[in-house]
Order: sequence, then C-alpha cells, then structure tokens
Amino acid sequence: MGDPAGIGPEIIAKALRQRPELLSRVVIAGDLPTLRNALALTGSDSEQPDLLPMPVDSLADAVGLPAGRVAVVQACELPRPVPLGRISAEAGRAAADCITWAARAALRGEALAVVTAPIHKEALSAAGVPHPGHTEFLQALAAEHLGVDVGQVPVRMMLSCPGLRTVLVSIHVALRDALDAVTQEQVLQTLRITAAHFQRSGMPRARIAVAGLNPHAGEGGLFGREEIDIIAPAVVQAQADGILASGPHAPDTVFMRARQGEFDVVLAMYHDQGLIPVKLMGLEHGVNTTLGLPFVRTSPDHGTAFDLAGTGRASPASLLAAVDAALGAGI
Amino acid sequence: MGDPAGIGPEIIAKALRQRPELLSRVVIAGDLPTLRNALALTGSDSEQPDLLPMPVDSLADAVGLPAGRVAVVQACELPRPVPLGRISAEAGRAAADCITWAARAALRGEALAVVTAPIHKEALSAAGVPHPGHTEFLQALAAEHLGVDVGQVPVRMMLSCPGLRTVLVSIHVALRDALDAVTQEQVLQTLRITAAHFQRSGMPRARIAVAGLNPHAGEGGLFGREEIDIIAPAVVQAQADGILASGPHAPDTVFMRARQGEFDVVLAMYHDQGLIPVKLMGLEHGVNTTLGLPFVRTSPDHGTAFDLAGTGRASPASLLAAVDAALGAGI
Repeated sequence: MGDPAGIGPEIIAKALRQRPELLSRVVIAGDLPTLRNALALTGSDSEQPDLLPMPVDSLADAVGLPAGRVAVVQACELPRPVPLGRISAEAGRAAADCITWAARAALRGEALAVVTAPIHKEALSAAGVPHPGHTEFLQALAAEHLGVDVGQVPVRMMLSCPGLRTVLVSIHVALRDALDAVTQEQVLQTLRITAAHFQRSGMPRARIAVAGLNPHAGEGGLFGREEIDIIAPAVVQAQADGILASGPHAPDTVFMRARQGEFDVVLAMYHDQGLIPVKLMGLEHGVNTTLGLPFVRTSPDHGTAFDLAGTGRASPASLLAAVDAALGAGI
Repeated sequence: MGDPAGIGPEIIAKALRQRPELLSRVVIAGDLPTLRNALALTGSDSEQPDLLPMPVDSLADAVGLPAGRVAVVQACELPRPVPLGRISAEAGRAAADCITWAARAALRGEALAVVTAPIHKEALSAAGVPHPGHTEFLQALAAEHLGVDVGQVPVRMMLSCPGLRTVLVSIHVALRDALDAVTQEQVLQTLRITAAHFQRSGMPRARIAVAGLNPHAGEGGLFGREEIDIIAPAVVQAQADGILASGPHAPDTVFMRARQGEFDVVLAMYHDQGLIPVKLMGLEHGVNTTLGLPFVRTSPDHGTAFDLAGTGRASPASLLAAVDAALGAGI
C-alpha cells in the first residue's frame, strides 16, 4: 500500500480500475478502510461495475474471488484513516507493517513478487523504523529470514524505462563517497548480481555495458585512473565467469548506445549517472527493481507526492509498469 | 575545416550541398585541394549544379560570389592532401592554423562567429600545439588578442540539442578533480558567463537551473553538503545580481524538467552530468557552444570519426545545427 497519507492507495485503486484483469493476480497488503476510501475517491464510471475491497487473511484466501473484488490483507493497524498529505508516525508504521507482511509472504514463497507503493522516509523515521528506504528494509527482512547477516544479502537497484535499464553500484550517498564505493569488488559484485538476475529472469545472454567513472572513461588514464585500475579488471573477471560484460565505456554515450539496442543494461558507477538518463527518458514509466533479494521486488519510480494525495490526479502509469515488470519477473 | 584527415571537410561539403543558401553566409578557413576533394567525394546529383571551391583572401573578398561558389581561405599549408583516417602532425598543424585564422578574423570583428569542424587531440599534440582542445586554444587566442592573461578569459562549454541546453562547470578532468572544481567562485562565474551569453544572444530573461552535485541535491545535507555550503550561496549571489537562477535542483530530474520547458538552460556540475542527457536526446543534432569568448563559437558535438573519413557516409546534421546556432548567435 505504501504510506497511506501519500498517493499509494489511490494509484493502486486507479491501476486496478484501468486494468481489472490484474485483480486475479494481486493482493494488496494494506488497510481496508484506507483502500475503500481510495476506491471511492477514484470513482467508477457508470459503464463499469464498481470495485469492492474484500478482506482476505492470506494469499491463498484470495484465489477465486468473484469479479470486481480487490483482495486486501489487513497488514497494519490504523485506528482511522490518516490525514492525506502529511507526515505521521502512524502512517510510517502502517507502511512498514505492509512492507513486512508482503516481504515475508514472498520469502515464504507464497507470493511471486512484491510491488511496493511509495513510502515517506521521514514518516518511517518518525515511526522508529531504522531503514532509510525500501531497499535496506527488504534487505534486512531477507537477511532475517535467511538467518544471515545483512551484509550477506548484497542488493543493487535497477531502474528501467522502455528502452533503457541501468543498475547502480551505489545509491544514496554523497558523490564523494560514491567515488570511494567504486572498488573492484563492488563493481564485480554488481556485475554478478546483475547477471544472476537476468539469468533467473530468462535472459541469460543479457549484454551488460559497464560505464566508466570519468569523462570519456578516463581517456586512457588522462582524466582519472579508476577505469584502468578498478573497472576494467572487474569486467575481465566477470568475463572469465562467462558474464557478457563489456567496458568501461564512455559514460556520456553508453546510455545512448544501450537505447539504440547495443546493450541490455548499463551498469552505472553512481546514482545520477544512471538516473539522469532513465528519468529523462520517461518518469511516468520508470520501474525500480531490487536485484539480489531472494524474491522479485519492483516499485514505481516516484515518491508519495503528498501535494497530489487525495486529488485523484496522480497517474498509476509507473505503478502499472512496476506490476507488469513484477509479473514478467522483474525485467 | 577541422582535421583534414577526419570527416570535417566532407561534412562541410555535404552541409553546403544540402543547404546551398548558406554559401552566401560562410567562408571556409581550410585547404583548397582538400575541400575540392571533399566536394568531389560527396558528389552532386544531376539535378543540381555542382559546387566549386573559390579561393578568397579575406572575408570581405567572399562577398558577392556567383552562385555555387564555396569561398575558401587558404588558412594552412599542406603540400598535398593528407591520407584520410590517420593521425598526423601535418594534419594537426593544418587544423591549428585554420582555427587561428578563423578566431583572429572573429576577434578583429570581421566574422560574426566561428564554427569549428572536429579536430584530433593527438594530431594537434603531434604538431606541438600545447592546447588539448578547441576551447583552450580559442581561449589562448582571445587572451593574446586582448593582451591579458588566459585566466582573464574564463570560458565554459555549453552543449545543446533540440529541447535541452546545459553549461558545464568543468569539463575534461577526472571526476574527483571535478568535485574539487565545484567552488562557490566557479559556480558563480559559470552563472555569470551563462547569463551574459543569453543576454547578448537576445534572451535576457533566460531561466537558469543549477543542478546539485549529490543525489537528490544532497537531501538537506544527508548525502553531502556541497549544495548547502557552496552551490546555494552562489545561486543567491547570482540572484542578487538579477540573474534568473534557481536551485540547486536534484540532478536526476532537473534535465527532464528543463526538457519539459521549466528552464532554458541547466548548469551542470561536471562533464557527464550534463553530457549524458544531451547525448541521449540526440547526438546528431548536438551543438557545442563556447561561452565567455569575445565572439560566438559553435561546433558539432562529435569527433573526427577517422573510421568514417573518406566514405562520404558521415552526417552533416550536427555541423548544420552548429552553423544554425552560430547564425542565431549561439543559442
């Protein structure tokens, strides 16, 4: 469901109205009254039978519901629906509980995939949740389930839009720290996680382009040596493992080349290197996939949009793209 | 003319064939036999009278030539046309002499603008030219003309394609060094150079978006403090000067917002931050404009393409976009 004060509930409602064939494939881990309100807010045109939320206790219970029923697991406790568009600890707690419920269902093998609606970092923090975002949260839940240290579940973020996919070596750190995170081990681990994801998703021959760190990929050491000392050796090691990696390529043209079909995915050395091109190509249809978890997890590539919450104007396009990616095993 | 061993001469020939109305507006600073060969290589269809190179001694001599004449100033010495697709000191020297001739004509106020065809860094270096690229070369020529130190002619690179313009704080340096180049003084100077360019070019109300350096522009100091300590104060100072600057904005969405019309130009903190989106949006129509020189200078956004030289297959689209930008005062 995401943060109940954000656009999550209403884009879920709009997505299911637009694509009712999804009703038989999804269960909402959320809050029944909040979802009832969201369904009411997004209205129904007279041509179409209204959607009704239907409480279920488990994924198994959701099988074979009558048409027009939205299966909702009451995955959190909310004494009453929260005010829209505001940060609150209750909303953060509810979002966290929904994430936990859904991730555990996937970890038990009951759900094929988890699609997460947007959460608000400050609301999570107000609720005392120690994780800054979904990724770290899911990583911790996976580690707990597997009985290992969280460091044993290395994950990476993949951002996709039609025509372009990018996997990031690091995400929410200062650019200076991101440079330090570009180590041979991290680049190689990113390559391995990426290759394993595409392997599992039915694209074992995915061509992975590795971007350089410096302008023109360092131009032979003239503008930085990370390509020579760190990135190229990691690419060579990955190739020795049979991974179809190439590079390091000049960052300013590698995304264009991928878009033209030369590569299936670009490994970006830092957050903005990968996100600038993906967001430029289409925020509406961006999908965020977490690679490295024991289950498929996708999410729309936008936030809670508190300023839009309750207006019914938020677009479900990115959420629908995320659901489609999840049903297609995250690619 | 650019490096005579590259695609420069042939894209000039193709550009003039495609748009013969430009003949009355341009003079080629080049080598007559090389341009004659390029015109022959790019052929003429039978429907159209052939173009003929016509030697002229100065820009004034080029006025009022008969139709179909390409005005060429012999701006360099080449005993014979150089072999195509190879790095050579002769080609580098010829390219350098053409740049010098054209820049001096513009510095004397005889030419409205200079459009530079691609040069090859190694050829320039083989010819003993101490400048790594056009920008530094033109800066040195301008400083010499003005009788000042080269540091007194600060320049910046602007890259443009239809729908997006970006000005870079730094260009060909390692990313680590680019981070150190993000100082309040450099950001403010970039803002001032950018504002002065748009002012002179007839867009005094240009809206300049300043990109942050870190993911999400640092998210309030959480992922780096450069936005708070360096970039925001520079923006405030520029605003106090009457410059329509805003930011720092999140780098991953600011280019999308500019493309959607919210800003006229994005100030990028480092090479790839600005070049990734511009190249993704259209390498063919990219234009490089040097801001800060006493004259307008544009160039196509691609290199010498030695692998294509002599095939006649290179596209003149970016060169034509550069000529159009120069005729439109570089915007």
